[in-house]
Amino acid sequence: MTDSSAAFEPVVARVESDLTELSEMRAPEHPGWTREVFSDPYRCSRDWISAKMRSAGLEVRPDRAGNVVGVLPGRSPAAPALVTGSHTDTVKGGGRFDGTVGVLGALEVARRLRESGVQLTRDLVVVDFLGEESNEWGLSCLGSRAVAGELLDADLDRRDGSGHRLGEQYARFGLDPSAVLAERWLTQLPVHGYVELHIEQGPLLEDKGAAIGVVTAIAGIERLMASFEGRPDHAGTRPMHDRRDAMVAAAHAVLAVHREGCGAPAHGVATATQVVNSLHAPNVVPASVQLRAEMRSIDVGWLETTKKRLAHDILTQAQALGVDVTFDWTSDNSVVPSAPSIQDTIAQAAARAGLTWEAVPSGATHDAAHIARWCPMGMIFVPSRAGRSHCPEEWTDITDIAAGVRALGDTLRILDGQEDLVGRKS
Amino acid sequence: MTDSSAAFEPVVARVESDLTELSEMRAPEHPGWTREVFSDPYRCSRDWISAKMRSAGLEVRPDRAGNVVGVLPGRSPAAPALVTGSHTDTVKGGGRFDGTVGVLGALEVARRLRESGVQLTRDLVVVDFLGEESNEWGLSCLGSRAVAGELLDADLDRRDGSGHRLGEQYARFGLDPSAVLAERWLTQLPVHGYVELHIEQGPLLEDKGAAIGVVTAIAGIERLMASFEGRPDHAGTRPMHDRRDAMVAAAHAVLAVHREGCGAPAHGVATATQVVNSLHAPNVVPASVQLRAEMRSIDVGWLETTKKRLAHDILTQAQALGVDVTFDWTSDNSVVPSAPSIQDTIAQAAARAGLTWEAVPSGATHDAAHIARWCPMGMIFVPSRAGRSHCPEEWTDITDIAAGVRALGDTLRILDGQEDLVGRKS
Repeated sequence: MTDSSAAFEPVVARVESDLTELSEMRAPEHPGWTREVFSDPYRCSRDWISAKMRSAGLEVRPDRAGNVVGVLPGRSPAAPALVTGSHTDTVKGGGRFDGTVGVLGALEVARRLRESGVQLTRDLVVVDFLGEESNEWGLSCLGSRAVAGELLDADLDRRDGSGHRLGEQYARFGLDPSAVLAERWLTQLPVHGYVELHIEQGPLLEDKGAAIGVVTAIAGIERLMASFEGRPDHAGTRPMHDRRDAMVAAAHAVLAVHREGCGAPAHGVATATQVVNSLHAPNVVPASVQLRAEMRSIDVGWLETTKKRLAHDILTQAQALGVDVTFDWTSDNSVVPSAPSIQDTIAQAAARAGLTWEAVPSGATHDAAHIARWCPMGMIFVPSRAGRSHCPEEWTDITDIAAGVRALGDTLRILDGQEDLVGRKS
Repeated sequence: MTDSSAAFEPVVARVESDLTELSEMRAPEHPGWTREVFSDPYRCSRDWISAKMRSAGLEVRPDRAGNVVGVLPGRSPAAPALVTGSHTDTVKGGGRFDGTVGVLGALEVARRLRESGVQLTRDLVVVDFLGEESNEWGLSCLGSRAVAGELLDADLDRRDGSGHRLGEQYARFGLDPSAVLAERWLTQLPVHGYVELHIEQGPLLEDKGAAIGVVTAIAGIERLMASFEGRPDHAGTRPMHDRRDAMVAAAHAVLAVHREGCGAPAHGVATATQVVNSLHAPNVVPASVQLRAEMRSIDVGWLETTKKRLAHDILTQAQALGVDVTFDWTSDNSVVPSAPSIQDTIAQAAARAGLTWEAVPSGATHDAAHIARWCPMGMIFVPSRAGRSHCPEEWTDITDIAAGVRALGDTLRILDGQEDLVGRKS
């Protein structure tokens, strides 16, 4: 390890043991490995992460936005830093690898560098970002948004299903909401590059037999809430020709969304995720139905034209049924390309470690999408068995995880040796 | 009124005032005129009905099944009785006329007969049946089922959404559950005929400009619960060709149900009333979706062939999507024809009162469907404005209600003069 031309070698058994320890911190009342943001198991896991960072020799620095930040100081404190990390929260009923692989992989890189006596030129900042997954307040990536200055005052007023404000939840978790907003360190710190290791959560790498994925871009997401309003007639007495059935209109919309996804280029997808008929009764024609759908692509043009075509199709079908429809579109994420320079560096590191790689898009969004606003960003994917994720069956072999940590370690070492970029990205 | 060849004349203002008084007994926290079975407003309304019956001179007889029963004694206590009535419970957010018109119309007939000094040969039994509408225990027509001997021991073990047994609910309402089961008076009492006045809840009479409807049959109902099981993949990372999307399969099923209804003969209808994706998340391909649907017709053959064709269509579409589907069919009601003799009597009464009439099917089910097992049954419909029902906008003009009460009064008088039927129907 003192020979910087040799490939970076993690202690694989240690990474595996860390993953196992972390996975046991979970809410036992839910299936899978459930560790939702702000929950007791989550709080417990973050104390554990802090302790692991300290014992690995990292300086754990206070972060008022709720991130856990550990720094391995470099020889030149003034040099733009390297940042790596991911998240340790999971979705309800989720798995053991989504996010955790990136945090524990980064921890292993820092630990291995230190115990090998290798000091980088740049500070290496390892971050466990707060609450990356979707939550009840409808705002993912809480920690990375905060440090990138993207968390807004208005976001603190978002309410969960019980009417509790996000701001109150921060306070209950022991964080001062105004300090959370002020903790915009990424906007002030010079950063040479951000690299995130993550499981793919899709089947492309497994299908292609590649050890790692070099992410080309993180897909943009357009979310649709369509509300269909018909008329609540008695289902036994109202003739078919004289109905305004909102469920039939919504069913046409589900199929329209599916058709758009099937016709999408460049790994575009479209999914109707929910249909709700809240005033249902077993003998009433559905009068009020809400449909939630999302479309993702790394092709901005496709997202725009599909939005228009989909709205036109849904409206036409609904009108033919006498059903009114309103559309509420939200651009959840714009398309975020990875920095070509970091993509190249990852490929170079993979070659050094003898790993096969494929250039792949990221259909899921990540903390990296927010960090990319302020510095060059790259992501390393490792394969997900059968592409499964957000479920108890989520799985990545430890040998695949080890390959990812190797690539991450070498990518960071190569980036460390590069000259500082001129100017700052904003 | 002492001249039995003159048309029966109700005191219309009194019926109107009764309807208004009753409508004020409702749950103020819900929209419309909400008076659900077992609720406080319902209990209140039944005390009111009992008092009204007593002051009209009816003998209010105990009924351990929770029905309110008032009897106007005839000259020949041994003669098979005439029974008339309906229900006073409403659905959540319901209207002022569904059920109540039949109970208050029957009350007015008895009251008017008595104050006119007309004594029928037969006992006239006026019934406000307990809980006719769908409820949380999934069993409508509680009172008419009980007196017809169709309420089963196992029904008392049905549970509502909170896990409470129907038997417990009876006890909370002050009824002994075993006495409810034993109160099978219709199976023991000789009954000459049952006539129920009810609003149509559909648009046929209004469309045809008829004053009353002579119901030919009460539609049979087949209910479907279809469960679609796919795979919960990440909606951003799973390619479209490799999904098992349960929502798409359910959407195809909604459209298949709708197509069957549109192609149905003889006022057949088919409605998908609910789609539930309980494990929804904004970024997960729906894996488990339940669809509820119902089909109604007075044509038994159509119901049977449509069930088979629909199941085949839904299964074929689901299989093409890699989605498993299971079907749970329930025959909620068989087709119940009205007695031709009572249909003729109603038509004769309408002619005497100078009322136009149409023969119409009943798409909705009624207490009459259960009573029909034990005696000749007939129903008189009055028009519903725009066919609306089970909503606050439900409306029938008082002149139309008056016409219905006239037809009911004369139908009962004509039936009273008929010879006893030989034998008993069973």
